[in-house]
Amino acid sequence: MEQQQLLKVLQDVANQTLTPAAAVGKLGNDGFEELDYAKIDTTRAQRTGYPEVIYGSGKSAQQIIGIVKAMKERQKSILATRVDSQKADVVTQALPFLKYDATSQTLTSQDKESVKIGNIAIVTAGTSDIKVAEEAAITAEIFGNQVTRIYDVGVAGIHRLFAKLELIRQANVVIVIAGMEGALTSVVGGLVDHPVIAVPTSIGYGSNLGGMTPLLTMLNSCSSGISVVNIDNGFGAAYNASMINRLISKEHI
Amino acid sequence: MEQQQLLKVLQDVANQTLTPAAAVGKLGNDGFEELDYAKIDTTRAQRTGYPEVIYGSGKSAQQIIGIVKAMKERQKSILATRVDSQKADVVTQALPFLKYDATSQTLTSQDKESVKIGNIAIVTAGTSDIKVAEEAAITAEIFGNQVTRIYDVGVAGIHRLFAKLELIRQANVVIVIAGMEGALTSVVGGLVDHPVIAVPTSIGYGSNLGGMTPLLTMLNSCSSGISVVNIDNGFGAAYNASMINRLISKEHI
Amino acid sequence: MEQQQLLKVLQDVANQTLTPAAAVGKLGNDGFEELDYAKIDTTRAQRTGYPEVIYGSGKSAQQIIGIVKAMKERQKSILATRVDSQKADVVTQALPFLKYDATSQTLTSQDKESVKIGNIAIVTAGTSDIKVAEEAAITAEIFGNQVTRIYDVGVAGIHRLFAKLELIRQANVVIVIAGMEGALTSVVGGLVDHPVIAVPTSIGYGSNLGGMTPLLTMLNSCSSGISVVNIDNGFGAAYNASMINRLISKEHI
Amino acid sequence: MEQQQLLKVLQDVANQTLTPAAAVGKLGNDGFEELDYAKIDTTRAQRTGYPEVIYGSGKSAQQIIGIVKAMKERQKSILATRVDSQKADVVTQALPFLKYDATSQTLTSQDKESVKIGNIAIVTAGTSDIKVAEEAAITAEIFGNQVTRIYDVGVAGIHRLFAKLELIRQANVVIVIAGMEGALTSVVGGLVDHPVIAVPTSIGYGSNLGGMTPLLTMLNSCSSGISVVNIDNGFGAAYNASMINRLISKEHI
Amino acid sequence: MEQQQLLKVLQDVANQTLTPAAAVGKLGNDGFEELDYAKIDTTRAQRTGYPEVIYGSGKSAQQIIGIVKAMKERQKSILATRVDSQKADVVTQALPFLKYDATSQTLTSQDKESVKIGNIAIVTAGTSDIKVAEEAAITAEIFGNQVTRIYDVGVAGIHRLFAKLELIRQANVVIVIAGMEGALTSVVGGLVDHPVIAVPTSIGYGSNLGGMTPLLTMLNSCSSGISVVNIDNGFGAAYNASMINRLISKEHI
Amino acid sequence: MEQQQLLKVLQDVANQTLTPAAAVGKLGNDGFEELDYAKIDTTRAQRTGYPEVIYGSGKSAQQIIGIVKAMKERQKSILATRVDSQKADVVTQALPFLKYDATSQTLTSQDKESVKIGNIAIVTAGTSDIKVAEEAAITAEIFGNQVTRIYDVGVAGIHRLFAKLELIRQANVVIVIAGMEGALTSVVGGLVDHPVIAVPTSIGYGSNLGGMTPLLTMLNSCSSGISVVNIDNGFGAAYNASMINRLISKEHI
Amino acid sequence: MEQQQLLKVLQDVANQTLTPAAAVGKLGNDGFEELDYAKIDTTRAQRTGYPEVIYGSGKSAQQIIGIVKAMKERQKSILATRVDSQKADVVTQALPFLKYDATSQTLTSQDKESVKIGNIAIVTAGTSDIKVAEEAAITAEIFGNQVTRIYDVGVAGIHRLFAKLELIRQANVVIVIAGMEGALTSVVGGLVDHPVIAVPTSIGYGSNLGGMTPLLTMLNSCSSGISVVNIDNGFGAAYNASMINRLISKEHI
Amino acid sequence: MEQQQLLKVLQDVANQTLTPAAAVGKLGNDGFEELDYAKIDTTRAQRTGYPEVIYGSGKSAQQIIGIVKAMKERQKSILATRVDSQKADVVTQALPFLKYDATSQTLTSQDKESVKIGNIAIVTAGTSDIKVAEEAAITAEIFGNQVTRIYDVGVAGIHRLFAKLELIRQANVVIVIAGMEGALTSVVGGLVDHPVIAVPTSIGYGSNLGGMTPLLTMLNSCSSGISVVNIDNGFGAAYNASMINRLISKEHI
Repeated sequence: MEQQQLLKVLQDVANQTLTPAAAVGKLGNDGFEELDYAKIDTTRAQRTGYPEVIYGSGKSAQQIIGIVKAMKERQKSILATRVDSQKADVVTQALPFLKYDATSQTLTSQDKESVKIGNIAIVTAGTSDIKVAEEAAITAEIFGNQVTRIYDVGVAGIHRLFAKLELIRQANVVIVIAGMEGALTSVVGGLVDHPVIAVPTSIGYGSNLGGMTPLLTMLNSCSSGISVVNIDNGFGAAYNASMINRLISKEHI
Repeated sequence: MEQQQLLKVLQDVANQTLTPAAAVGKLGNDGFEELDYAKIDTTRAQRTGYPEVIYGSGKSAQQIIGIVKAMKERQKSILATRVDSQKADVVTQALPFLKYDATSQTLTSQDKESVKIGNIAIVTAGTSDIKVAEEAAITAEIFGNQVTRIYDVGVAGIHRLFAKLELIRQANVVIVIAGMEGALTSVVGGLVDHPVIAVPTSIGYGSNLGGMTPLLTMLNSCSSGISVVNIDNGFGAAYNASMINRLISKEHI
Repeated sequence: MEQQQLLKVLQDVANQTLTPAAAVGKLGNDGFEELDYAKIDTTRAQRTGYPEVIYGSGKSAQQIIGIVKAMKERQKSILATRVDSQKADVVTQALPFLKYDATSQTLTSQDKESVKIGNIAIVTAGTSDIKVAEEAAITAEIFGNQVTRIYDVGVAGIHRLFAKLELIRQANVVIVIAGMEGALTSVVGGLVDHPVIAVPTSIGYGSNLGGMTPLLTMLNSCSSGISVVNIDNGFGAAYNASMINRLISKEHI
Repeated sequence: MEQQQLLKVLQDVANQTLTPAAAVGKLGNDGFEELDYAKIDTTRAQRTGYPEVIYGSGKSAQQIIGIVKAMKERQKSILATRVDSQKADVVTQALPFLKYDATSQTLTSQDKESVKIGNIAIVTAGTSDIKVAEEAAITAEIFGNQVTRIYDVGVAGIHRLFAKLELIRQANVVIVIAGMEGALTSVVGGLVDHPVIAVPTSIGYGSNLGGMTPLLTMLNSCSSGISVVNIDNGFGAAYNASMINRLISKEHI
Repeated sequence: MEQQQLLKVLQDVANQTLTPAAAVGKLGNDGFEELDYAKIDTTRAQRTGYPEVIYGSGKSAQQIIGIVKAMKERQKSILATRVDSQKADVVTQALPFLKYDATSQTLTSQDKESVKIGNIAIVTAGTSDIKVAEEAAITAEIFGNQVTRIYDVGVAGIHRLFAKLELIRQANVVIVIAGMEGALTSVVGGLVDHPVIAVPTSIGYGSNLGGMTPLLTMLNSCSSGISVVNIDNGFGAAYNASMINRLISKEHI
Repeated sequence: MEQQQLLKVLQDVANQTLTPAAAVGKLGNDGFEELDYAKIDTTRAQRTGYPEVIYGSGKSAQQIIGIVKAMKERQKSILATRVDSQKADVVTQALPFLKYDATSQTLTSQDKESVKIGNIAIVTAGTSDIKVAEEAAITAEIFGNQVTRIYDVGVAGIHRLFAKLELIRQANVVIVIAGMEGALTSVVGGLVDHPVIAVPTSIGYGSNLGGMTPLLTMLNSCSSGISVVNIDNGFGAAYNASMINRLISKEHI
Repeated sequence: MEQQQLLKVLQDVANQTLTPAAAVGKLGNDGFEELDYAKIDTTRAQRTGYPEVIYGSGKSAQQIIGIVKAMKERQKSILATRVDSQKADVVTQALPFLKYDATSQTLTSQDKESVKIGNIAIVTAGTSDIKVAEEAAITAEIFGNQVTRIYDVGVAGIHRLFAKLELIRQANVVIVIAGMEGALTSVVGGLVDHPVIAVPTSIGYGSNLGGMTPLLTMLNSCSSGISVVNIDNGFGAAYNASMINRLISKEHI
Repeated sequence: MEQQQLLKVLQDVANQTLTPAAAVGKLGNDGFEELDYAKIDTTRAQRTGYPEVIYGSGKSAQQIIGIVKAMKERQKSILATRVDSQKADVVTQALPFLKYDATSQTLTSQDKESVKIGNIAIVTAGTSDIKVAEEAAITAEIFGNQVTRIYDVGVAGIHRLFAKLELIRQANVVIVIAGMEGALTSVVGGLVDHPVIAVPTSIGYGSNLGGMTPLLTMLNSCSSGISVVNIDNGFGAAYNASMINRLISKEHI
């Protein structure tokens, strides 16, 4: 808070035009709910535009259930990523309003009234990248974006990409997902006039080094307009793409 | 080109409503100018929204002069990055319309009539990151974006960041530039509701590994909404940010 | 397509010597068959001389079955690599014309009429490298090459190599497969006058780093005439060797 | 032993004011108990202020039982770290005075009379880091330190940290435990005036590289006053913190 | 700020016992001085116990002069590290009260009245590590600590270490500085009952990897009580050691 | 030598149809000329099809002169690579029949009567890769191959590649040379039916890691038919390509 | 074979003092026995002083049985390393003369008449390194060396090492085996006047990097007289030590 | 010192058969001479069989002069390694009895009366490795060993190695020095029955990684009997070889 604004609030309190209690709301607020094992960030949507999302890896089914319950009181959509099928069984029995998708390993509860706007293209190099792509797609949808899926158009058969190029060009943002050597990103980057978010995947073997090779490829792309997220981070790419797509699209609504 | 469109063009030719020569323009076109040492991409602006930029590193002063001359015939703004001061002296003597900035190591010729729109915030952790920040700032300006510079607000003195937070929040896109451990990115990412583009710098020593440490930090950020470009790649960050800022802003114009 | 050729096609259309529909065939063509989870590249043989091959890792048995069925309509030989025995059981029950080889983890259906030509020598340093060698051997055979297998002639007992040297020298191309430190490649490279394709394997432990050590060894060989493929990539080596062997041999037929 | 002191002892022996046998006690002493598979260091507490601790990983349940029995004769508190639940079952059946904690994977026997002094704050970025934090907390407690636990205050929601800042500032030493990118360390380091010991955790994926990323982050921190221990080394951090806390606190007792 | 405290301040303002202007001082304050190229952190001593220090690398002589001048108004001691001799000449001509030490590459201005307390031992393995050791020693002295220097006692001649062991054991904190393989740290760690701060140096060649080898050695030490700072970071070690030494020692004063 | 052949030679000696001296020529022969600092391999052409080449890096001008003189007696073409311009000046003054090319840093003496056969395409992604490309081109020419140079057709402007595709497809072998992320290799590999030899270059910055990034990209290519040589190893690529091109082409002569 | 000797043999054949068949024995000899999956090196003992040893990892129980049977005909002692207990069960049922040791994972059959000579000291830092130490010890014993085992004397309690120092100094060769940071090697290296062979182990976690850290430590030791083998390579260390010990000792017999 | 021995000494003192002063000599002794910047280890020869050697890198000419002077009083032979020619000029002017060798960068003063015994073979792969080989050769000679130099016999022309094999086999120890991929080591290791000490060199480029590639090659050798020292560490290899050669040879004298 800038000193100007702070002074203003304090003068309002001095002038009795603001009660001390109301000023607390303006000046500070713990902004989280404390569980035994977590501090749920209740002001995240306010600060960053999006509510907190549950990263399921390393959390027990019981912890996920506890966090979902706490969240459910405040927000309409719920998203938990990286939930394996065993945990998902436990969670969905306790919370039947959650829907599990095995490919993307996500648990979701979509706000019925939300409208999907804009257009995010999700492009994969191969069939094996679809797992990561679906994490991205479901994340983008839960955040209210329209999604166009274009899978298995890697550069070994580059004509498959060209056949889909117009479709890709219509999107506000393009997510390119590729393992092995990740060359698809540079090719797409050289052909579109919207931002490209690149997701390296851990698909490959030997000197692929668990996805480090496509990660490095994407960071060193000779094409411009490409930025990169962590290996297999479909969620992160969709989060970014959603921010951009919604900022562009909201003018049209 | 989709088969539908292709058939359409060909039927027009068959129907004599399109001459073969005109069809060539629609169906294909070399799209580059051939110098001895380079093929200048003349359709890049058409494809990606931005004209080609000269990456000065590894090119001689004479090669830069030749490429600038060829470009100048087609585009109003010129940008060359990574030009050291020795090369810059030679180039600016031959082409006095170019302006050299020693901090960012850029040569520019700005289109006088261009209007700067929107708002890109460029935030650095330290004083030593300014070199990369200015490459980003000048790139963003030459591409027609308004830029807000906020330098030296690293987390060792985090109150400096909070004092500038409102300024940062007003931007359409935020570029965060940091060396050493790059922690500033995660803090900013957790506080803003617009996309953050992170640029690791090679500032640091020992286990900084020439910028690999902040690069890895940024890719693994616990905050969402962050995507990353290569180490010291101020240009790349600005290119991305410009795409996003202009797509958001053009609705307002 | 060069502008010359493009103009020619279009003039033929204008001259009515070519129908628009036929021109589509010349100018473009999707060139792939779209399944839910894959786009099968139907023009690969035309472009690269070899039909598409199924990389089994990360695909389900059902996906492999679907892809084989689609391919079977267009090509006589089928090759799927990296298929573990569990998947193989499911696939061969559905498609009994496929033959499974457990050592190389390949599924194949060989064109009965194909003739094997030329000579590719496949040389391994140790017994443990045979798994990769057989992936190479079966790939080479399915692509119509004669194969000479020379296994376990590593440099710890270099006289074993010399005893087989004449056999190796008779081949058009030599594939050298080695794990641990991969020194065999350099020794072979210094003794033959045909191209050597080196395959590092992940055989070893400790500072072998999953095959990175023999990979680096092979790339830095003091002998000339050696090029390298990815760790454990028997298929890739055979693909290359086949290209070379067949180009050399076809003059003799 | 300095020559001065040595000479003194020897003169005492020469002067018959010290028996040779007593001099052995002064000049040397094996200082360990020899088991078949281990040499238990019986003078460690004397040398370093703390008795030996059992690192359970790679030891069998029977070996742990044997070592605990040997130690029990000389020291009141017992601590074994990295003991999985299967081994723990066997050990606690044989030695029921030991208490097993499944989160931290520790076996302990606390000296009833020990008094906990001072204050060590243990701060984690996320819920998944609690496992490492509890190893640190239980180690610190067994060594006689008071512990303040502050969990899940990572920088993605930095207001959670600020809400707990006064609590953290009251500690003599702060242990910061974080995975992913580890940025929390730098933020805390910039806000407190006591030493910070940083523990990177292996929580994360992709380019996290098993905790190497937060390790590098912490080593390169732009904040001062931070030192670092190995990945997931909660024990090591607590050992260090205990040394510092007890040295500061003992003046108050 | 906790809500309790915030409410208290606001109620004081409402009760007119605190003016709005005075409340600003309590609730917020920019806390930095803005230069063109830097934001000098004026509340660092208050927050962390130590004033800001100038990291000279990557700053021009003019920038260093500007920052020193701004600092000089608020603090008695000045420390700039990593200043090469060329820059130092320019700076000391402009600011003759600064003293340059070529071994440690530091510029200092010591508060005359400061008293040095406690005892920090600085131990090096070799002669070549002295450069880093002196950066640590001078930092520790400027921060008001007594320093005991013990150089060149590496484990290749371990009796040199034992001859100095009593001297080392008398210190409140021990800084161990070593390049090559860094084994000295573990030996010292097993022999003292005070905290050891380890500094790897970039002294070595080949697989030393610029200091990464001793860094890894120190992080994996089998001795307890060791924490580690970045390669060649004598300043960071001294900063940590000073915090610990002064907290221990202040009770004695 | 197989035992069969050995027995044959020995029986010829026993039968007096071969003199012992002549048998030496068949059974063994030192096969090198000994200088003070080198053993020149005089039977390499016989064994591998190509005479020895001088790797200039790390050799003095005088050593290069000595080796060239020794070679000149036996072979018509001379090639020395990695000779900087300073050394080249000394060498060409002593041996004026050698020609120096500054771009490729090669010294050559071409056999006048040699005929260039076949066709090797050398393709680069950028202008900065030309240095490596020319090392490849000159090597290929000195070994008697026709070379087609196609420079600066990287995937950022992929239409430049398509415009040259027919030219590339006419070659017997294709050398693809690329720095940065090296994606061009995969695109070319998917479009040609001849072997592709990939050369990563050290062109790039930051996470390019001195060429390791394009090296890894090329090894992990999703296209088949690609093999890889060391970073910047234009010579090695040409040597391989020459072997293949000449084996294919010699049937036509 | 030197030309002198070759000429001599051939002249003997010419002179009829040697039959061609006998000459084959002198000039060449396949020197291996060919199984389906291996070429057993039958002249290794002659060339290197030691018969071939079976590296069990990656070989099936049946392959091990086959190789042992083939070896048994020619040599008295058999050693197979890296044989897990499951394979060992199968092998020892088929070949009951083999003895399995579970700690070292070796199968052995010792020549009853062999005499153990000299003295190899095997020293470990910890209890967990004993597995590797026993592979070394059993290898050394099967090769006819006396072994002195000194386990768990790591530098965290360095007095344990000093208590055993005289014992270590009596050996002809010292093998030092250590995981974690591997500092023990340098300490021993500085205290003995016989060669030290260092074996890093994969004992450790986090930044131990599977044994790469102690490997690097040992290679960079400040003590002289140390050479290093691969991670966990107890066999290799014993092989080296045996060569040295037997060469020294044989003079005494 | 074992307790037995300690008790014995002390009883002698008690019995007046040993004076306290004489006992100091037996029980302890500083064992080093203290300069300002170094502690010269005066008992190293006694402990390890060899006097201290000066590692010149990172020491000034004046420091080297000081250390040589101090050493000269106690030992006949002097060896300083890694001394560049500039420093050497200063040192040899002050101490004209020292001899400088520019290839190996050593300063030596050989004891005239020393006799060279045994036989160490030093084998290099290439001409560029000679620099490291000469450091090894001169070290071995100063330590009293006979040396056989065999240079430039790398595996690209393996017949050069075979021509020298008998010479190599006559040595007690073999040092193999190789850069690039280091394959020579494995070949030699498979052909000799004496210990092989491998020295990787930093000769190479690209993925050679400053010698890390041959280092890894040598550590992973499929041949037994090889141990490895640090990159370019000719001194270390010779020190090891000398220990072994002298232990073997001294029986013959």
